[in-house]
Amino acid sequence: MGLDLTADAVTLTQQLVDIESVSGNEAAIADAVEQALSGYPHLTVQRFGHTLVARTDLGRDERVVIAGHIDTVPVNGNLPSRLTDSDLHGLGSCDMKGGVAIALRTAATVPAPNRDVTYVFYECEEVEAERNGLFLLSQSHPELLQADFAILMEPSDAVVEAGCQGTMRVDVLTRGERAHSARSWTGVNAIHRAADVLARLNAYEPRRPVIDGLEYREGLNAVFVSGGVAGNVLPDECRVSVNYRFAPDRTEDEALAHMREVFSGFEIEVSDSAPSAMPGLTVPAAAAFVEAVGGTVNPKFGWTDVARFSVLGVPAVNFGPGDPHLAHKAEEFVPLAHLRSVEAQLRSWLAGDDA
Amino acid sequence: MGLDLTADAVTLTQQLVDIESVSGNEAAIADAVEQALSGYPHLTVQRFGHTLVARTDLGRDERVVIAGHIDTVPVNGNLPSRLTDSDLHGLGSCDMKGGVAIALRTAATVPAPNRDVTYVFYECEEVEAERNGLFLLSQSHPELLQADFAILMEPSDAVVEAGCQGTMRVDVLTRGERAHSARSWTGVNAIHRAADVLARLNAYEPRRPVIDGLEYREGLNAVFVSGGVAGNVLPDECRVSVNYRFAPDRTEDEALAHMREVFSGFEIEVSDSAPSAMPGLTVPAAAAFVEAVGGTVNPKFGWTDVARFSVLGVPAVNFGPGDPHLAHKAEEFVPLAHLRSVEAQLRSWLAGDDA
Repeated sequence: MGLDLTADAVTLTQQLVDIESVSGNEAAIADAVEQALSGYPHLTVQRFGHTLVARTDLGRDERVVIAGHIDTVPVNGNLPSRLTDSDLHGLGSCDMKGGVAIALRTAATVPAPNRDVTYVFYECEEVEAERNGLFLLSQSHPELLQADFAILMEPSDAVVEAGCQGTMRVDVLTRGERAHSARSWTGVNAIHRAADVLARLNAYEPRRPVIDGLEYREGLNAVFVSGGVAGNVLPDECRVSVNYRFAPDRTEDEALAHMREVFSGFEIEVSDSAPSAMPGLTVPAAAAFVEAVGGTVNPKFGWTDVARFSVLGVPAVNFGPGDPHLAHKAEEFVPLAHLRSVEAQLRSWLAGDDA
Repeated sequence: MGLDLTADAVTLTQQLVDIESVSGNEAAIADAVEQALSGYPHLTVQRFGHTLVARTDLGRDERVVIAGHIDTVPVNGNLPSRLTDSDLHGLGSCDMKGGVAIALRTAATVPAPNRDVTYVFYECEEVEAERNGLFLLSQSHPELLQADFAILMEPSDAVVEAGCQGTMRVDVLTRGERAHSARSWTGVNAIHRAADVLARLNAYEPRRPVIDGLEYREGLNAVFVSGGVAGNVLPDECRVSVNYRFAPDRTEDEALAHMREVFSGFEIEVSDSAPSAMPGLTVPAAAAFVEAVGGTVNPKFGWTDVARFSVLGVPAVNFGPGDPHLAHKAEEFVPLAHLRSVEAQLRSWLAGDDA
C-alpha cells in the first residue's frame, strides 16, 4: 500500500503507524516514504540505508532542516492503530509518526516554501547512537545537514521546546578490603563507604539556570548501585552509577569537572556522555520560527537529537504533536488537534500567505 | 586403595586428601572410611547416604560425639597433596581432613575409651544446609547424636574454640517512585533513601559480650547492595543485604528483633538465619575436656555445625588442627605439629593413662 501524501495528517499518521517499523526493521516504511516522495519534482530525494533526505533547491536566503525518525520502540500490544474522535492510538503515534506525517505532508504540498527545506526521515533513533541514522548522516554527509536552523519533530505537546539538557553517567567507586563477615574488624566495608556518596546526592542542590529566558532544571541521581561478593564477605568494591542532567550552558567537559568536584575524594569512571544543546533562540531564523508558531517556548529537559545539530553549529528546537511523557508507553497516542495545529503552524511559517 | 588407620596421622591425612571428595562426590571417601572402620569389632558402624556413624557401646557414664565432615570445597589446582618438613598442603588438608584423620585414628586405636564415643563422618558440609549430612542425621536419627558433649573437629588452630556466633541476613528495602532522570523532581529516588541505611551501619557499635569468660565480637555489615532500573530512570527500589553476626547470648528471635530496631522505619526481609551456640563450658563434660587439652579456650566467631548440637541440647566445641583462616583457600595446609598435638590431646582425654 502506497502512502497518500495528499491525504490529511490524521489519515497519513494512521497509515504510517500501521507499517510496523521497530528499530532495525525500517525497510518497509523507508520504501514507502521514498516511493511517495519521489513523485514530487520539486524535491531531490537521496537514500542512505533506511534514512531519506529530500531537499528543495530554490535558492532561498535561508535553509532549514525538518527531521524525524521513522523507527519505534518494540511492539507492546499496541498495533494496529485505533482512532477515536479525539485521538489516534498505537505504537509510534506519539513518538513520532505524527510528526513524520506532518513533515511528509509539508514536503509534498508546499512546493515553493519561502525558505529552502531539507527534510530528513531517519532510522534507528531508539537504539544505540552508533546506528542512529541522523548521527550516521552527520558523519558521512555533514553538508546535507548544514542549515540556518533545524526543527526536530519529536513530541513536544505541540509547542516549541528549545535546546536540550546534556546527560552524563559516571560510576562513583568506593574501595574496601575483603574479610569474612564473622571477623569484620579485619576488613573495610566498601558498601558502608558509599554512605558518603549517597549523602552528597541527598545534599545536592541542582541548578536552575535561565538561558534565553527559559528556566532549565538540572538533576543528579543515582540510577544504579551494586556491590557484594558473597553473603559472608565484606565487599571490597561498591559502585554507584550517577546520572547528571546538565543545562545547555555547560559543556560535557564542564559537566565532568563538576562531577569530579561533587565526588572529590572518590574514584569516578565516565560510562556515558552526550552534550547539551543551547536553545539558540537569538538566531534570526529561530526567532522568526518561534514568532510564527505563536511565541510559546518551553525548555527541553530530556536529551534529544537536537544536540546533534548543535554539534554541527545549527540551532535546533523540538516541535511536534503529542505528549512527550507518553513516549515509549504502550498506551501512547497523539491528539488529532495536535496534528492539525502543528501542521497548520509549520505550513504557515513556510508558505507565508499561501497557508 | 584402602585406608590404614594404624598409620600415623600425617600419612592418614595425606591419604584422605588424595581421595577427591568435593561436596556431592563423597562416595569414594565414604566407601574407604566405611571399609576401614568396619574392621574394628569395638565399633558399631552405620551408613546414611555418605554419612557414617561409628559407636562404642561400653556402658560408660558419659557419651561424647566426635564429628567431622568429609567433603571439601571445589578443586582449585591444589591436588594431589604435597608434604614438606613442617606442613601438609592440599585441598581439604586444613578444612578438614586433618581433623577427620585424627578422629579415624582415635576410633580405631582407642578400643576402650573412658567415655563412650559416637564418631560421625558426614557429607555436604560445604553446601546448602538441606544437604548437610549432620543436619540430615539430626532430622532422621536425632537419638544417634544424643550425648553429654560434642567435639567438632573443624580447624581451630589446635586449641578449643567454644560455641559459635549466630548469623542472620536481612534485606533492608527502600522504596521510591520511578521517574525519567531528565525530570527527576517528578519522582523519588530509592537509592538516595538508602543513605540512611548505610549511615546507621556506619554508626553501629557492635557488642562484645563476655560469656563463660570468653569475649565474643558481633558484627553488622552490608554484604550486598542493589538497585536500578535503567540508566535514565530514578529507581523505585533499593535493597541492602545486611549480615548480622550475633553472640551466643542471643537467639535468632532476639537477633531479628534487634535488626527491626536498628532499621526501624524500613521494610526488612529475612533471607537467611542460623542460631548461635552457647560455649557450654560450665557443663562438667566440657570442663573436663578443656582441662584435659590444656585449658586454653578461644571464642568461635564464625558459624559452624556446633550450632546443630546446641539445638539438640548438646554442648559442643570446635577443636581441630589447622588455621581456620586458611579454610577455602587454594593454598590451605595443615601444620604437622597440629596433627600430632591434637591427636595426642584427644587420645589422652579419652584413654586417660593409656595415652
